[in-house]
Amino acid sequence: MTFMEKLKAVWKSSNSLVCVGLDPDVAKIPEHLRSAEHPLFEFNKGIIDATKDQVCAYKPQIAYYAGLNFDEDLLMTIRYIQEVAPQVPVILDAKRADIGATSQMYAKEAFERYQADAVTVNPYMGMDALKPFLDHADKGVIVLCRTSNPGAKEIQELTVEGEYLYQRVARLVSGPWNYNNNTMLVAGATFPAELGQIRKIVGNTPLLVPGVGAQGGDVQAVLENGLTEDKTGLVINSSRGIIYASSGKDFAEAAGEATRKLNEQINSFR
Amino acid sequence: MTFMEKLKAVWKSSNSLVCVGLDPDVAKIPEHLRSAEHPLFEFNKGIIDATKDQVCAYKPQIAYYAGLNFDEDLLMTIRYIQEVAPQVPVILDAKRADIGATSQMYAKEAFERYQADAVTVNPYMGMDALKPFLDHADKGVIVLCRTSNPGAKEIQELTVEGEYLYQRVARLVSGPWNYNNNTMLVAGATFPAELGQIRKIVGNTPLLVPGVGAQGGDVQAVLENGLTEDKTGLVINSSRGIIYASSGKDFAEAAGEATRKLNEQINSFR
Repeated sequence: MTFMEKLKAVWKSSNSLVCVGLDPDVAKIPEHLRSAEHPLFEFNKGIIDATKDQVCAYKPQIAYYAGLNFDEDLLMTIRYIQEVAPQVPVILDAKRADIGATSQMYAKEAFERYQADAVTVNPYMGMDALKPFLDHADKGVIVLCRTSNPGAKEIQELTVEGEYLYQRVARLVSGPWNYNNNTMLVAGATFPAELGQIRKIVGNTPLLVPGVGAQGGDVQAVLENGLTEDKTGLVINSSRGIIYASSGKDFAEAAGEATRKLNEQINSFR
Repeated sequence: MTFMEKLKAVWKSSNSLVCVGLDPDVAKIPEHLRSAEHPLFEFNKGIIDATKDQVCAYKPQIAYYAGLNFDEDLLMTIRYIQEVAPQVPVILDAKRADIGATSQMYAKEAFERYQADAVTVNPYMGMDALKPFLDHADKGVIVLCRTSNPGAKEIQELTVEGEYLYQRVARLVSGPWNYNNNTMLVAGATFPAELGQIRKIVGNTPLLVPGVGAQGGDVQAVLENGLTEDKTGLVINSSRGIIYASSGKDFAEAAGEATRKLNEQINSFR
């Protein structure tokens, strides 16, 4: 099954547009886990067990593993998802892009070493830099478009030939770059009007939406601007709001409850 | 000593603008090394021993290590450079950028885990995404501007308010983003006229120039367009043209000779 087929199936079976961002910082996870041999994996395992029937994707951010030499925990986490929740696709958030020969190595990192179903990438170097990812027709390639950070507009809202740069990127990603029907775009929840502009350009191409929860994105506005006609089309990520719902031994239970609430809130606007 | 001080000192002591790209692919290194416990490190060690007095930087591309689980080889390589050639700065080519909290983790990856002196980053998300790197005043932050790949112009030469996007990026990187005087820009050797445009904008800000050798960049045109008044300002990278100069047991000797020739060619135009 391709990533896109998997995503469509799990949207339906889970009745959820929620993606959980698995971005654990060893300094922030509950104290009783910090001395484990694989603390980030143990933490993620609890979160996954408590949320796996309520989500449409998991999104581990590779920097949280690579930064402090927890690569093994990342691999164990992805394998665990494939074992206990094989219906849930794994998006490796890596924001890669480089010249072709190098991007081939990054595609190996995402799809072979870590066995992810999809990966996030950066459009600045143009399509040929992303081709080694896009050529994997069975994998999802999620291109940055309008990101959720406060300073995103500095580059992304420069005006190019009568439109914003992010709108041009949306046209490219959903048009010529989508030759394998496997692209998605990143559109931050913190800028719902811009997300709506992107939806108008890209038709039914799914959007990965970071920025609800800790970053303050408005769920109602995201739904109103981003849903497709069949009431899907969105993968709405929450990381800190779910994984740190409690800092105690009940962190997993609290994460499950936070996911349930977010899903309920989202579905109330569908 | 900061990265910038280190670079200026080594330009002088080595009389070289050559950077060697340490991008070894285990399928391409000499056969007798492939079964070593740390084949990429053994390969790099030979290259470093043969080139260390003739270069102004080493630039390992992280994808070549991360793609096939050779992270340990990368760490050993950087430690080896610090041991036998402490005067030569190490640029980790990683092209990272993400929201602030995540970029902090990427900065840890580059500067703590791998102890690099400088790192390459991507401008698409704006300055706040790069702040966790830029805040390290002692480290170099090398921002993509006009890259060397054939399709670079698809995004980088979109016209924004009367100039190309890459020119706007050059203005930002050498202006407001340079609050710690620690930025450089990537300008591909394959587009020397554009490199010249960048030089006009950024004054003496150093340029990292990939694309000579295998990618076909024109050395003479790079020098004519890119040198600063004091005949430095460039870090000219060659990877495949040097590290694969021979596929036999004499690979290190051949790499040393290829570096000597490239340096001689470059210096003939200084």
